[in-house]
Amino acid sequence: MSQFELTHDFLSQLEELIDNGDSQQVAAALRDLHPADIAEIMEELNNERAKFAFLLLDDEKGGDVLAGLDEEERNRFLETLPPEVIAKRFLDNMDSDDAADIVGSMPDEQQQEVLSHLDDLEQAGDIVDLLHYDEDTAGGLMAKELVTVNENWTVLNCLREVSRQAENIDEIYNIYVVDDDNKLKGRLSLKKMLTSPTSAKIDNLFYRDIISVKTDEPAASVALIMGKYDLVSIPVVDSIERLVGRITIDDVVDVIREEAEKDYQMMSGITQDVETSDSIWSQTKARLPWLIIALFGGMVSAYMISRYEAEIALFPLTAMFIPVITAMGGNVGIQSSAIVVQGLASNSLNLKNGFRNIGKEVGVALLNAGICSVGIFLLTLCFNFSSLAMPVTVTLSLFVVILFASIFGTAFPLLLNRLKIDPALATGPFITLTNDIIGLNIYLLTGNAILGSF
Amino acid sequence: MSQFELTHDFLSQLEELIDNGDSQQVAAALRDLHPADIAEIMEELNNERAKFAFLLLDDEKGGDVLAGLDEEERNRFLETLPPEVIAKRFLDNMDSDDAADIVGSMPDEQQQEVLSHLDDLEQAGDIVDLLHYDEDTAGGLMAKELVTVNENWTVLNCLREVSRQAENIDEIYNIYVVDDDNKLKGRLSLKKMLTSPTSAKIDNLFYRDIISVKTDEPAASVALIMGKYDLVSIPVVDSIERLVGRITIDDVVDVIREEAEKDYQMMSGITQDVETSDSIWSQTKARLPWLIIALFGGMVSAYMISRYEAEIALFPLTAMFIPVITAMGGNVGIQSSAIVVQGLASNSLNLKNGFRNIGKEVGVALLNAGICSVGIFLLTLCFNFSSLAMPVTVTLSLFVVILFASIFGTAFPLLLNRLKIDPALATGPFITLTNDIIGLNIYLLTGNAILGSF
Repeated sequence: MSQFELTHDFLSQLEELIDNGDSQQVAAALRDLHPADIAEIMEELNNERAKFAFLLLDDEKGGDVLAGLDEEERNRFLETLPPEVIAKRFLDNMDSDDAADIVGSMPDEQQQEVLSHLDDLEQAGDIVDLLHYDEDTAGGLMAKELVTVNENWTVLNCLREVSRQAENIDEIYNIYVVDDDNKLKGRLSLKKMLTSPTSAKIDNLFYRDIISVKTDEPAASVALIMGKYDLVSIPVVDSIERLVGRITIDDVVDVIREEAEKDYQMMSGITQDVETSDSIWSQTKARLPWLIIALFGGMVSAYMISRYEAEIALFPLTAMFIPVITAMGGNVGIQSSAIVVQGLASNSLNLKNGFRNIGKEVGVALLNAGICSVGIFLLTLCFNFSSLAMPVTVTLSLFVVILFASIFGTAFPLLLNRLKIDPALATGPFITLTNDIIGLNIYLLTGNAILGSF
Repeated sequence: MSQFELTHDFLSQLEELIDNGDSQQVAAALRDLHPADIAEIMEELNNERAKFAFLLLDDEKGGDVLAGLDEEERNRFLETLPPEVIAKRFLDNMDSDDAADIVGSMPDEQQQEVLSHLDDLEQAGDIVDLLHYDEDTAGGLMAKELVTVNENWTVLNCLREVSRQAENIDEIYNIYVVDDDNKLKGRLSLKKMLTSPTSAKIDNLFYRDIISVKTDEPAASVALIMGKYDLVSIPVVDSIERLVGRITIDDVVDVIREEAEKDYQMMSGITQDVETSDSIWSQTKARLPWLIIALFGGMVSAYMISRYEAEIALFPLTAMFIPVITAMGGNVGIQSSAIVVQGLASNSLNLKNGFRNIGKEVGVALLNAGICSVGIFLLTLCFNFSSLAMPVTVTLSLFVVILFASIFGTAFPLLLNRLKIDPALATGPFITLTNDIIGLNIYLLTGNAILGSF
């Protein structure tokens, strides 16, 4: 099977088959598709059609499709299915973490009803256990399905037990070794198990240096740990080191994406995680706070300019260069802070280079400021001013503004990070605003001094 | 072993031990640490000390440490080691993809010398093969180590072969099934192999629906495919479907991070991947292009304002609200384009909702524009203007500017995407600049009409 690409043609053919109630043809069209592709198709269909297609899937595939649906689409769709069908046909066959995610995103009454219909009581118990954890922690990411063996067993015991336990698990990533109290002792590699004599004792074979996380470890930190140590799965233990679950890298990939999106949104002045599919009101709520702050910042600028009313009346062309000064300050500030925020996020700003940054940034700033100042000087000459006062004013202030914006844009996120505040806050609207106000002051003061004295 | 946190204390103690030449104590301090942690420590040490510590590691751990070092630090460090030592002690023991990355980042002469010293000719051949592929493609990401079985074998053959092949591989993710021509036919799950009778034929056990990528598939698209289908590893085939390697998710995690960073940098007006550790000149080169463009944009603004010189001389306070108009237009535009770019990057903007976006954005824009306009009207009243002309001008133009910036910020990245241009180009400086110029025009025109008529 190669990758599937959803086309308008495929979709309209499928819709026609569904509208004709042609179960056989619809089932045939979906049979060879991956659950992730079917999920994508379902998101394009209306509820009625989606339901028709969905109920033709076998139970395991149906469960995988549910897990692949976008949360909002899934809830919209699940409302159309009876709780018994959801529970018995699909949740019973899913991994506990996916099932818990689905149940967790349902309204409270639906949750209770669905849980009461589960046949597999172990699965029901696992789901209820998992629902206790905050979704942004290791506990919220983990699944309960794992393969464990006792440190006192032989390889033969292990092979039998692994075969038995493996029935419920899609892929085996690691075999965890526990003691009689279910405390995590280490891991046994599949390779070691397969390549050792069956009579060998596990105790002599397993790796004792195992990296685990506690259930309350934040998701972002789980992602950093798994990334740093190149782990495909990581065991999760409770406060007294008992093994309670495992997190696989595919769940962490989503966390990594979300973290990156968070920084991106912070920079673009959006306060919450919003998507194009969110309602108009929730999009507005996410965007309005920064706009209001920018509005107040703009008023501060307005007030400052108003204090130079007389000068502007005398030299109205002072107004000409307000936009270029604010824009350059903003751009330079965002560049500087973005580089620092990214360095902090990827942990590549370390003990040694953390302190060298501001010094280096001054070098970059001097170079940028020098080149841009020469540029603006030449460009302003094109306006044929009667004296050099205006070009000199603009050139000098641009130089100072770039220098200031670079240093401030570098130092401020470093300072926030020291104070344990998310440094990404220092990117985007905040940095632009501050540089607007300070840049304007520099420009107006310089203008006042130079234009006044010519 | 739990996670290690590098402290100043640990570092200075280690440096003292190294300076005293106390090999035993240094080796003891590093013995229980994970290679990723040792790599982190080495990046803090100077070359001399790093070399001393490094040569105390056993060969396998040394190789893992090398693979964990930042590319720049690694090259700096490898220059201090003789090519024979690099080849014989470390590269021979590494996964082919990591070894190829290391060799690929060396200067040409060093590459040849190191390769000529490899004892393991299979490894040398694998490295040379891998060096042919562009590093941003599936071929550049893949490793040659994989476990393959023939479709005609029995489970017993397989178990033997897997045990044999597994000697060279850290973790087994999947067992690939090939035909006599080494063409990829499917995959055998470990679970299936372990839970089937040893006499069973592979042909009846393996999954035929396997997703693979060609060697020239771009890395970003490999990441999307693995993410979409929740894959831990993916086989790589050549143009005639022969199995040539496999990519594991840990390598793709880096690609995902880099893609996210690229969008982030594009938005912050940085044209190349730069880090805080890069030289002043390469940082300046990455940042200057957008600054120069912003400079020209600023000159366009300046020219436009200059055409209203007479009006500004008459109503100098017109200048007051230039910054708030440009700042609000810029902020709103960035918010809108960021939401679209993110939707496109995560593939969550699909056929159905792609067209609905602009309509919805108009709703969000009307709401934001309405609330901000009321806000600015009230705020401008605080300035005690003699008439309502100024407040009305600012309010009206802000409303139009927000509306325009929202629609433009949404439509433009969608358009770029249609034209197969990276939509992230439409974020950051570009959108700010355009909104600055158009916003200013709206403001000055409105001002001219209203202030002139009062």
